[in-house]
Amino acid sequence: MNDIYVGIDVGGTKMLAALVNGNGTIMAKVQQPTRAERGTKDTIRRLMAMTESLIKESCSEAEGNTIQGIGIAVAGILDPSKGTVMLATNLGWENVPIGPLFKQYFQCPVQVINDANAAALGEWLAGAGVGMKDVIYVTVSTGIGGGIISDGRLMLGSTNSAAELGHISIDRNGPLCACGNRGCIEVYASGNTIAKRVREDIRSGEASTAIVLEMAGGNPELLNARHVAEAAQAGNEYAKDRLADAGSALGMGLTAIIHLVNPEMIILGGGVSQSGRLLFEPMLDTVRGHGIPEMVNRVRFVTAKLGGDAGAVGAALWWRYERTITSAVQEAVW
Amino acid sequence: MNDIYVGIDVGGTKMLAALVNGNGTIMAKVQQPTRAERGTKDTIRRLMAMTESLIKESCSEAEGNTIQGIGIAVAGILDPSKGTVMLATNLGWENVPIGPLFKQYFQCPVQVINDANAAALGEWLAGAGVGMKDVIYVTVSTGIGGGIISDGRLMLGSTNSAAELGHISIDRNGPLCACGNRGCIEVYASGNTIAKRVREDIRSGEASTAIVLEMAGGNPELLNARHVAEAAQAGNEYAKDRLADAGSALGMGLTAIIHLVNPEMIILGGGVSQSGRLLFEPMLDTVRGHGIPEMVNRVRFVTAKLGGDAGAVGAALWWRYERTITSAVQEAVW
Repeated sequence: MNDIYVGIDVGGTKMLAALVNGNGTIMAKVQQPTRAERGTKDTIRRLMAMTESLIKESCSEAEGNTIQGIGIAVAGILDPSKGTVMLATNLGWENVPIGPLFKQYFQCPVQVINDANAAALGEWLAGAGVGMKDVIYVTVSTGIGGGIISDGRLMLGSTNSAAELGHISIDRNGPLCACGNRGCIEVYASGNTIAKRVREDIRSGEASTAIVLEMAGGNPELLNARHVAEAAQAGNEYAKDRLADAGSALGMGLTAIIHLVNPEMIILGGGVSQSGRLLFEPMLDTVRGHGIPEMVNRVRFVTAKLGGDAGAVGAALWWRYERTITSAVQEAVW
Repeated sequence: MNDIYVGIDVGGTKMLAALVNGNGTIMAKVQQPTRAERGTKDTIRRLMAMTESLIKESCSEAEGNTIQGIGIAVAGILDPSKGTVMLATNLGWENVPIGPLFKQYFQCPVQVINDANAAALGEWLAGAGVGMKDVIYVTVSTGIGGGIISDGRLMLGSTNSAAELGHISIDRNGPLCACGNRGCIEVYASGNTIAKRVREDIRSGEASTAIVLEMAGGNPELLNARHVAEAAQAGNEYAKDRLADAGSALGMGLTAIIHLVNPEMIILGGGVSQSGRLLFEPMLDTVRGHGIPEMVNRVRFVTAKLGGDAGAVGAALWWRYERTITSAVQEAVW
């Protein structure tokens, strides 16, 4: 008998379903554009169909494979006890009972889980954090999010909203964030804000932006953080400064997180994290210059291993994880 | 058979030992000045003697009372696995094996625990937080510290240093903190910094400080945060502004903590927290003005119930708590 888990990651642009074994290895996976604009019913229908064919084609019961559970990762406000996505703005979903729908259709246990928490679980159980007990996973891409593992348990919080890592303020007088707070690290270090800053500088005629604009094919609207990273790696001082600003802000936020959680490892994932040492060195300098040495020296900083699969792997491994903790953190009542 | 626990809180000025039953009720307690200046051996000897007489006088085995364990709360860097206080600056202790010493003398299990974590455990299990699962305990006195309970577990961190709540920065360009960071809430909202600011204003001839100075008997060196609170309660606008500054800084720090931990309750303890609404209203205004509404609205803000006994009660209840969690978080190896 081989225990197999299904992990699904429903993002704003793509949806991914994977068959994962107990070690966290992906046996098979399938991906489609989400096309949320076609409506919730259509998205769910296609998601069910792609999951069904994935199982049929790659998970033969004759070979002793049995599906132990399905985990579904979604960015949004969730009610795991009901299996409902209460609000997912990037999908246009409101009160979608995706858990019960999948449970009825596939006749197996289903868990919905915040996408950043799922990715944290994936990296911890099957990626860069294997064997650790106290881990912070930070994803820096268009936005900033993450998950916290403390003493071998994923921190969910009282309303499943823990680890809003992007919304740690490092300057009470800083710029307003969309969340209502001021000076959140997301307003300094996310891919969106890095690109926004460069676009503003282009508009105000800042000459040193030229190479970055060139990387974006001359169109400021297409410019993103990857172009900034490429320009920086090509030696452009302006672009280097933008990554250093972001790294330093990220370092201030990580210092606060280290002081609260006292982790042994911080895993950095997401597209912006791939900018390499031009982001990481200012980040580490800031952490080392500001954090309590005994706590900072304890931390290993590593990059994520699972890339875009982390959410699906973590959602799948929820069921393996859930068995290892005493009491089910969330009791499904549907 | 009545299970009895011994809780000990070794502070810089006083040391307290209490007999606590399984409900967290103090059956008997004894307190002495610490007099750390007499040396570690002398302090330990007196602490053992007072604990022994407490047990002898108030814990009759004939009445079916049995000591289940001793918990010792100390402010400092600890190694709970060895039962050692590695460094406690306020006691002048370095590498003191207090756990093994007490274990050998009293012939029962002994746990050493960070004092702020012990107080958090006490308030959660027997004070203001009974029945909750996700609780932040913040103590605002001369310094700022606290503890985090997440999903019914005390967060210890990888080196037992989690929940350094005083060292969350709210301004990367703020004043330098003793910890090495900048703009920590401790440099704005602790009793020491409130008093320090007033002393500076007195020195620079700020007239509106007069009533605060009067509260301190005319001696700036004796002036502390309580005098500021008293002047504020008497209607002095300058003193009100000092509490409002502290409350607002505290609110920014709590916002970060709420975004990370997603608690259902925040318990405020320590002397400065007794300043009442002149501190709390600016604090709550800041939290509500900056925090993510869904997360902030979830939180009940309450004041601590156990006062100066919280650390001893929590240290005692460690042993009851430890049985309720699956695996012993710390395995004593001595």
